[in-house]
Amino acid sequence: MIERSIYNEDHAMFRESVKKMYAQELTPYVEEWETKGIVSREFWRACGNNGMLLPDIPEAYGGGGLDFKFNAILLEETALAGTTGPAFGVHNDIVAHYINNYGTETVKRQWLPKMASGEAIGAICMSEPSTGSDLKNIRTKATPVEGGFLLNGSKTFITNGLNADVAVIAARVGDDSGARAISLFVCGCDQTGFIKGRKLDKVGNRSSDTAELFFEDVFIPQENMLGKQGEGFIYMMTELPQERLSIAISCQAAAQHAYDIAVDYVKERQAFGKAVFDFQNTRFVLANLKTNLQVGWAHLDACIQALVDGKLATHEAAAAKLWHSELRCKVVDDCLQLFGGYGYIEEYEIARLWRDARVMRLYGGTSEIMKDLISRSI
Amino acid sequence: MIERSIYNEDHAMFRESVKKMYAQELTPYVEEWETKGIVSREFWRACGNNGMLLPDIPEAYGGGGLDFKFNAILLEETALAGTTGPAFGVHNDIVAHYINNYGTETVKRQWLPKMASGEAIGAICMSEPSTGSDLKNIRTKATPVEGGFLLNGSKTFITNGLNADVAVIAARVGDDSGARAISLFVCGCDQTGFIKGRKLDKVGNRSSDTAELFFEDVFIPQENMLGKQGEGFIYMMTELPQERLSIAISCQAAAQHAYDIAVDYVKERQAFGKAVFDFQNTRFVLANLKTNLQVGWAHLDACIQALVDGKLATHEAAAAKLWHSELRCKVVDDCLQLFGGYGYIEEYEIARLWRDARVMRLYGGTSEIMKDLISRSI
Amino acid sequence: MIERSIYNEDHAMFRESVKKMYAQELTPYVEEWETKGIVSREFWRACGNNGMLLPDIPEAYGGGGLDFKFNAILLEETALAGTTGPAFGVHNDIVAHYINNYGTETVKRQWLPKMASGEAIGAICMSEPSTGSDLKNIRTKATPVEGGFLLNGSKTFITNGLNADVAVIAARVGDDSGARAISLFVCGCDQTGFIKGRKLDKVGNRSSDTAELFFEDVFIPQENMLGKQGEGFIYMMTELPQERLSIAISCQAAAQHAYDIAVDYVKERQAFGKAVFDFQNTRFVLANLKTNLQVGWAHLDACIQALVDGKLATHEAAAAKLWHSELRCKVVDDCLQLFGGYGYIEEYEIARLWRDARVMRLYGGTSEIMKDLISRSI
Amino acid sequence: MIERSIYNEDHAMFRESVKKMYAQELTPYVEEWETKGIVSREFWRACGNNGMLLPDIPEAYGGGGLDFKFNAILLEETALAGTTGPAFGVHNDIVAHYINNYGTETVKRQWLPKMASGEAIGAICMSEPSTGSDLKNIRTKATPVEGGFLLNGSKTFITNGLNADVAVIAARVGDDSGARAISLFVCGCDQTGFIKGRKLDKVGNRSSDTAELFFEDVFIPQENMLGKQGEGFIYMMTELPQERLSIAISCQAAAQHAYDIAVDYVKERQAFGKAVFDFQNTRFVLANLKTNLQVGWAHLDACIQALVDGKLATHEAAAAKLWHSELRCKVVDDCLQLFGGYGYIEEYEIARLWRDARVMRLYGGTSEIMKDLISRSI
Repeated sequence: MIERSIYNEDHAMFRESVKKMYAQELTPYVEEWETKGIVSREFWRACGNNGMLLPDIPEAYGGGGLDFKFNAILLEETALAGTTGPAFGVHNDIVAHYINNYGTETVKRQWLPKMASGEAIGAICMSEPSTGSDLKNIRTKATPVEGGFLLNGSKTFITNGLNADVAVIAARVGDDSGARAISLFVCGCDQTGFIKGRKLDKVGNRSSDTAELFFEDVFIPQENMLGKQGEGFIYMMTELPQERLSIAISCQAAAQHAYDIAVDYVKERQAFGKAVFDFQNTRFVLANLKTNLQVGWAHLDACIQALVDGKLATHEAAAAKLWHSELRCKVVDDCLQLFGGYGYIEEYEIARLWRDARVMRLYGGTSEIMKDLISRSI
Repeated sequence: MIERSIYNEDHAMFRESVKKMYAQELTPYVEEWETKGIVSREFWRACGNNGMLLPDIPEAYGGGGLDFKFNAILLEETALAGTTGPAFGVHNDIVAHYINNYGTETVKRQWLPKMASGEAIGAICMSEPSTGSDLKNIRTKATPVEGGFLLNGSKTFITNGLNADVAVIAARVGDDSGARAISLFVCGCDQTGFIKGRKLDKVGNRSSDTAELFFEDVFIPQENMLGKQGEGFIYMMTELPQERLSIAISCQAAAQHAYDIAVDYVKERQAFGKAVFDFQNTRFVLANLKTNLQVGWAHLDACIQALVDGKLATHEAAAAKLWHSELRCKVVDDCLQLFGGYGYIEEYEIARLWRDARVMRLYGGTSEIMKDLISRSI
Repeated sequence: MIERSIYNEDHAMFRESVKKMYAQELTPYVEEWETKGIVSREFWRACGNNGMLLPDIPEAYGGGGLDFKFNAILLEETALAGTTGPAFGVHNDIVAHYINNYGTETVKRQWLPKMASGEAIGAICMSEPSTGSDLKNIRTKATPVEGGFLLNGSKTFITNGLNADVAVIAARVGDDSGARAISLFVCGCDQTGFIKGRKLDKVGNRSSDTAELFFEDVFIPQENMLGKQGEGFIYMMTELPQERLSIAISCQAAAQHAYDIAVDYVKERQAFGKAVFDFQNTRFVLANLKTNLQVGWAHLDACIQALVDGKLATHEAAAAKLWHSELRCKVVDDCLQLFGGYGYIEEYEIARLWRDARVMRLYGGTSEIMKDLISRSI
Repeated sequence: MIERSIYNEDHAMFRESVKKMYAQELTPYVEEWETKGIVSREFWRACGNNGMLLPDIPEAYGGGGLDFKFNAILLEETALAGTTGPAFGVHNDIVAHYINNYGTETVKRQWLPKMASGEAIGAICMSEPSTGSDLKNIRTKATPVEGGFLLNGSKTFITNGLNADVAVIAARVGDDSGARAISLFVCGCDQTGFIKGRKLDKVGNRSSDTAELFFEDVFIPQENMLGKQGEGFIYMMTELPQERLSIAISCQAAAQHAYDIAVDYVKERQAFGKAVFDFQNTRFVLANLKTNLQVGWAHLDACIQALVDGKLATHEAAAAKLWHSELRCKVVDDCLQLFGGYGYIEEYEIARLWRDARVMRLYGGTSEIMKDLISRSI
């Protein structure tokens, strides 16, 4: 790739510390998490202990007081380590941000320090079984009661759904319909009536616990509303660029990782009397992937810098999510093919990487939703 | 699709009987087979009892005495039923053909009737861990001894590897190298030294038991050699068109099945206030797939007819394998996307169909091997 | 390709005679026609003299009294000769068919024999500047007057626009709007008020004279109406499958021709010390094209047979037009690339073939219109 | 696009001045140049008068004494104005650089000021009829004679071939073969024996005069050798990144321009009762292009910055050339399709843009050469 210029020495040091920590606390456990379908809480706490969580949240609330580039490094290194199981994007870049940006002081003091230490894991609850990406039409309802709200409804495709200790939940207040009825709430997951459903059995990304959640008269105190009533949809639109960029970052790094292991493989593997790498087809396939990775890193860095500068538009983040997720799927598919039959066998990492990648064009808004969003800016 | 013209009334009746039998004996068990990683032997015997196995093998050996189109129907209906678990292509189109075409009378009488009844399941053993698609360089060795040979070596990616009762095995005789040293042998899988290794954990196609096999001084009587010594490579080249067409048939039908369930889904599923089908993007994606399926069926029928007429060239079968396997992967990927997030959840059939498809560009010779073969005919 | 089976000996003889005639009357003139932007009338008459025009029109009207497969052969051989200049699809497959199927006896006797002899060249007038593919909204108007109609309006993208002697014109009668107001008329192009506009300067397909036409009070006798008033749209929908299949046939043969000359070139051309063909990339590119051509021929034959059998559905013909036109564009683009820089130089035929191909995804209904049509059948 | 950050205020002012100058001196003449097949010398001189030529050559030699970003702006604005006729990449970024970096003081003083004023137009002569991209095997020969060399041979695909006043020519000295025999020479085009051949008739990019050149005993003084004898190949390898980046810049801007005019068109053009833009297919196609353009600009800027910083590796420039040229071809093809039939008519600019783009995957090294280069870095 072209030499990256957005990171300074502090970032480099943080990256090195993450790499070291991952060698001991992440890499040896990936397979176990895959089998169990969930990342261990110990890992989250170890991350907290190492000061890796909530990098860009103020130190006053336990965060790192740093910039988003540290979040980005965490995402990159996780994907480069071959997994997207620990959903740091959700925890650091989404949930902590909602709470920090729109939460009351009480809520911030209640949850952010625990999220920074890894004691509390965050989840964001938007999608519902019947609405998918159509956020304006969510049905989960927060009925005003004395001192707060009673929450009823259900959510699905919730990342960290089982591990979660704290959730940011989108719900409509009262009987209004449309976007202006939607508000956001912070809710501890041990509240009465907060029911964690079954873990969804996914094609890939299996170490990430994705679940359904059900709310049966869950009481949410007034102060747990994020920002103003009826502005939930606006907040979501405001925060989505960061969420989508998080996905783009993971995708780019995961694509790079798949490419890296494929290069190693084809240089080693012999066929018809020479290394697989020495076939022109192999070299051209890899040259094309390397080209796209180079282009991708440059674009990604421009996006990260723009986000840090407060200049990344919604449609630009959507374009990033679209492009990098498609890149990742293209890369893993081409790389798997280079492994021949072994690419289809689970003991080869590329098999899992291939399965893992496919969700990226679906979650955080499908590619079609991204195109729709982008087209609105034309 | 354009009305198919290669099948007559007998074929239609056979197809109907397969459909009926599958409704009772296959469909209800697909999930169980997926979980267990193997198709039940009961199913094979039921197929035998229904006269569905070995359609184009002479009646004298228990076969149907029919043409290859009946084999094709079986492959089509299996894939249309949503599975490629029962490896009829291997059993009917490959193993039975090798035995029938090159076996001694003793061997034919020993194995074909049992294969027709479903008592004996066949496997074909070509690929080896270190050679992959490079058949000329296989290392499994058949050392001449009194009355036959002692077989030593190992094979991998063997479909029906655990279920198999009879195997056709490619091995080199003596110390010669190159294609002319290779011979084929029929071997009962309960022979001493015939060791079934672990089942390979595959990305998909999980109800098909793929395994490694090891041979430690397995005695093979002289009469179990297929055809002449040293002609094994020629026989394989002769039989490969049929094997590859079998894969092409499965791919085309599996692609059609994925398309069919996606159409049903998008007509049902609502998003943003209308059926997903009613979005122009959905309609265009499906129109493109339907177009390719139409083209594919016409091509497939031309191939089947050419094979029955003895006119399907090696490179034409390779082209069929290449094109239909890529079509299948394209179709399942586009269709999965139409399911949105649900496409990634295993309880939706499309998720499995997507995983299942990927092997098709790898086994029976990778797409690259197909291109190499085709290019030799230019 | 897989051996074609739809043609019998009579077809083969016709093909041979076309090939011979083309070697003398077409090939030597292609460049001249390209430069002049029009095919010579002498060529049309020579075709008539050789009994090549109107193959499937009854002998009573000067036609060949044969089946559509002869039309198909003419289309194939023209494209295989490297040009799509002579618009036989329009003349034989569209205009003659409209007149034969819906014309009064007077009109049939007036025009068909001349069309068969090549004295009269036909054009079909549908598209208008403001409507494009939206046939329901054409504005050309036929005002009823004594003994017939006065035609006013304009048409564009008219193939054979300058050469044309007889035109089939879609116009609306009276002030009604919508599809049911459209009728079809046969009109001699020397009628007063029938004005041939300028020849359109096209990217390719330059030997085909495409023009704008203007109608200023052109008198059309009542008997020149095709079929019943108000049924024009229905007739167009009925005839369009044949028109679209004609395009598909030309595309497939033109793609084959581009492939053929590319194969010749890369086997001849040396680079880096060996034939360009000997690079794996070249061989894989060509193998992929050969595969698609094989698939295409099989599909095309199924379509031709279905049309002859009266079974080719509108959406199936649309799928054929879509698929084969995209194939042609893909093939010429890949082939041009194999020529390196020379592919961009007009003295190499591939350069023209590349320019010629692009229109195929646009005329006869764009690819988007095809997808829309196909989606209506899902 | 994401806000660009590589340009400062000086760059912005330069860009504005170029825009203004182009409105008067370029845009009104594009069609004329296209017809004549050559850019007028008056335009070159006007550019010189406006201080637009040789931006990054020292002021001592008449250049701007600025950085390469000014060169880039010139390339961008030319392509955004809808033409790549004036080959500034060759003149500013290649020829002037060779002379400035490797020329003797005499040669620099002789040619650079004239090139800066637009009196002398530069050409670079590498490709030969029989060698194409295989630079190591060029045959043009420089035979040592008293005081210099006699040049014999021929070159082809020479941009500015007819307009050129000064050429940098690669030739081999003596009878050695291989890369180490190649040297570079500066040669005035009015030298005896320097014969300008015919202008090549190209598919597109027609306002750029591409020609064959022949050398018959052309005398080249010793001092006109660039750098050291036998190092020509090394110099070419050193300068190629800049040449390739120039092409990438043109491609990106040309793609943006095609997108821009397509957006305008589809918002204007009505079909089936609404603007073409309002069809979901149109919006998705454009969203995808916009996404790729966003990614492309970010990558381009990273490359330009890296070049200015002296850090752009050969393989990275090759990747840029590969990716942006493919982007341009993809964009113009998709955009042309959005114009429907009009896209194929030369009076619509998109038709020419489509033809123009195709050369980009061929010249400056084909896409295949780029992949080969990139693969060497893996």
